Amino acid sequence: MSSEVSYSKEPHRNSRFTINSKEPFNAEPPVSELTKSFVTPNDLFFVRNHAPVPDVCLDTFRLTISGLVQQPLTFSLTQLQDGFRKVTVMATLMCAGNRRTELHNIQPVRGVGWGAAAISNAVWGGVSLRDVLLAAGVGPYARNMHVAFEGLDHANGAPYGGSIPIEKAMDVNGAVVLAYEMNGETLPRDHGYPLRVVIPGYIGARSVKWLSSVIVQKEESSNFFQRKDYKVFLPQVTWDTVKSLWDATPALLELNVQAAITYPEDGTVIENGLPCSIQGYAIAGGGRRISRVDVSIDGGKSWNVAPMVQEKGSTSTGNHHWSWTLWIYKVDQLPTPCEIVCRAWDTAFNGMQSEREWNLRGVMHNSWFKVKVLPAEHASKL
Amino acid sequence: MSSEVSYSKEPHRNSRFTINSKEPFNAEPPVSELTKSFVTPNDLFFVRNHAPVPDVCLDTFRLTISGLVQQPLTFSLTQLQDGFRKVTVMATLMCAGNRRTELHNIQPVRGVGWGAAAISNAVWGGVSLRDVLLAAGVGPYARNMHVAFEGLDHANGAPYGGSIPIEKAMDVNGAVVLAYEMNGETLPRDHGYPLRVVIPGYIGARSVKWLSSVIVQKEESSNFFQRKDYKVFLPQVTWDTVKSLWDATPALLELNVQAAITYPEDGTVIENGLPCSIQGYAIAGGGRRISRVDVSIDGGKSWNVAPMVQEKGSTSTGNHHWSWTLWIYKVDQLPTPCEIVCRAWDTAFNGMQSEREWNLRGVMHNSWFKVKVLPAEHASKL
Repeated sequence: MSSEVSYSKEPHRNSRFTINSKEPFNAEPPVSELTKSFVTPNDLFFVRNHAPVPDVCLDTFRLTISGLVQQPLTFSLTQLQDGFRKVTVMATLMCAGNRRTELHNIQPVRGVGWGAAAISNAVWGGVSLRDVLLAAGVGPYARNMHVAFEGLDHANGAPYGGSIPIEKAMDVNGAVVLAYEMNGETLPRDHGYPLRVVIPGYIGARSVKWLSSVIVQKEESSNFFQRKDYKVFLPQVTWDTVKSLWDATPALLELNVQAAITYPEDGTVIENGLPCSIQGYAIAGGGRRISRVDVSIDGGKSWNVAPMVQEKGSTSTGNHHWSWTLWIYKVDQLPTPCEIVCRAWDTAFNGMQSEREWNLRGVMHNSWFKVKVLPAEHASKL
Repeated sequence: MSSEVSYSKEPHRNSRFTINSKEPFNAEPPVSELTKSFVTPNDLFFVRNHAPVPDVCLDTFRLTISGLVQQPLTFSLTQLQDGFRKVTVMATLMCAGNRRTELHNIQPVRGVGWGAAAISNAVWGGVSLRDVLLAAGVGPYARNMHVAFEGLDHANGAPYGGSIPIEKAMDVNGAVVLAYEMNGETLPRDHGYPLRVVIPGYIGARSVKWLSSVIVQKEESSNFFQRKDYKVFLPQVTWDTVKSLWDATPALLELNVQAAITYPEDGTVIENGLPCSIQGYAIAGGGRRISRVDVSIDGGKSWNVAPMVQEKGSTSTGNHHWSWTLWIYKVDQLPTPCEIVCRAWDTAFNGMQSEREWNLRGVMHNSWFKVKVLPAEHASKL
């Protein structure tokens, strides 16, 4: 039974990953690798699992569409592929816990210790969730309901799951994909083989992998990961006091604006006065674009605009945009020691936080990203 | 001719307004009035004019729909009212320059000196822009175009205007209204009589008043107020250096997350230890809801969640929400002197800025809102 799956059948993984948790497997690529290509190679795409990877047999795999639909449907993967037009969407996924470890300096956070590389960008090939729901008789302008997803992985004895508002699912510009391909290859097991839903612009946790069930329903998903995790609280909220707050606190859906420096890394040694090409990524939630990335080489006292690059290949649906923005800021003579800081603004001019603030689950942390660069004389002392 | 209209025919205005500019007329209500009702009375709704108020004759008034449409259309107001279903949307409008005066302490900003009351909430009655564009033969899923608006008011010798992405106009949940009623009354002259467009979730500047022309076009509006104003720059950008930056900087559309305290006001005297009901508003852009409002009575060192009130009467289209959120935070014994601070988070967990940062146009300023409350002994010394 799928609920009894153990860690004995985990897929092979890239040895270059930083493993933050072995069972379940959670790993991120070296942060400097992230911005070497606009599309992340499959074997370097960050992996966030909540349970053992299901060992799915394609012959028996079925996707069911049920709940508040006119016509419940069941598909094998081939039926899904043959029955609907193929769509491809380039979209970045990011874990809501990206950059969690930076909060450990304030107070430890229970959860996977992510650096700044719990984010990757891929081209997802599959069918449109909207198309499939239309086939099940859901109206194109359905409102005030939720689309719940369940995977074949079992965490805490129940299937992993979550939900999104039906307006996102039915939005012709919403770009929600039931993906069976990742960068032109068969979806890898670590990313949900044979099928996952990809919800562009949302926290990664909603892009349920090993997808087996889509349910249209009145309420949001009652799954643990929708109701009792992935929420933000004030710093004073503890594991004791949070109990009364889960229900009153909304589930995270869209991502906030985020940016990080991928080169140089914190502690890099660069001789005073040498040139430096500072690099990084930025991303906004909900299909908003990045309006501006600012870089400071004096610890945030003064800023300059960083040129944004490589936006052209990415997917936009209408005025919505689903991929990260990469940027390079070239300094002719970097004065070291120095603190390099970056921050980004989305098109609604929402910005990042200047200070770190702890929260119980360590999610949505988007304070200005800071790295210290040391002068050459420091290296000889190491 | 309408371009020759002078300030001799301005409407009567409420004497309680704070007038920030007489010609053109720009005024805001007392900030403490804002949160006394969820819907702002018409005669207290903030007024942001760029030119003399047009004196429009209903007999000759026409709205034209033109540009990249299958069927250009012209309507009298009656034809518009008779030809389409009536819709009502409760939506808050806010000027992008709201809270501009707080930046004057850093460096003066050229522009209307708004306090924190360049925001108001009303029920807009009219026809759906989507319905009208569909009648003109625009496809329901039109993409990658813009809908430009022109008013009958003339600023700098040209009609006031602006544009929005066509995806917003055609979004069935976008709630864009061609409004001829405001809170059940005929649209007042100061708010665009006989017709204005209301773009919920966007900066107020796009909700063009005295609307005479809707044009579907490939590029965004070339109007001065779309291209050469209402943009955010880094603090070091001056009127000299901005010239090369206008074109490369995106026009503001959606609002960022914003909140302010309406009671007590800065400098209020309250005897140490007395109870205090701190009140204010919060709003997010793009239809996002407010997720949480935090209040601090120790200058931002510690925070508590403020209960949100009066959300029920407001309009949601699907998971989009267009009205502000009011909040009241009751303190049994307010220790004075103290600094009260508020901040808000939207559902994507975008937050406000902890520090004030100057920008050339003084727009989108959303730093934590702060008021100082003084003890009773201070009053006797005044």
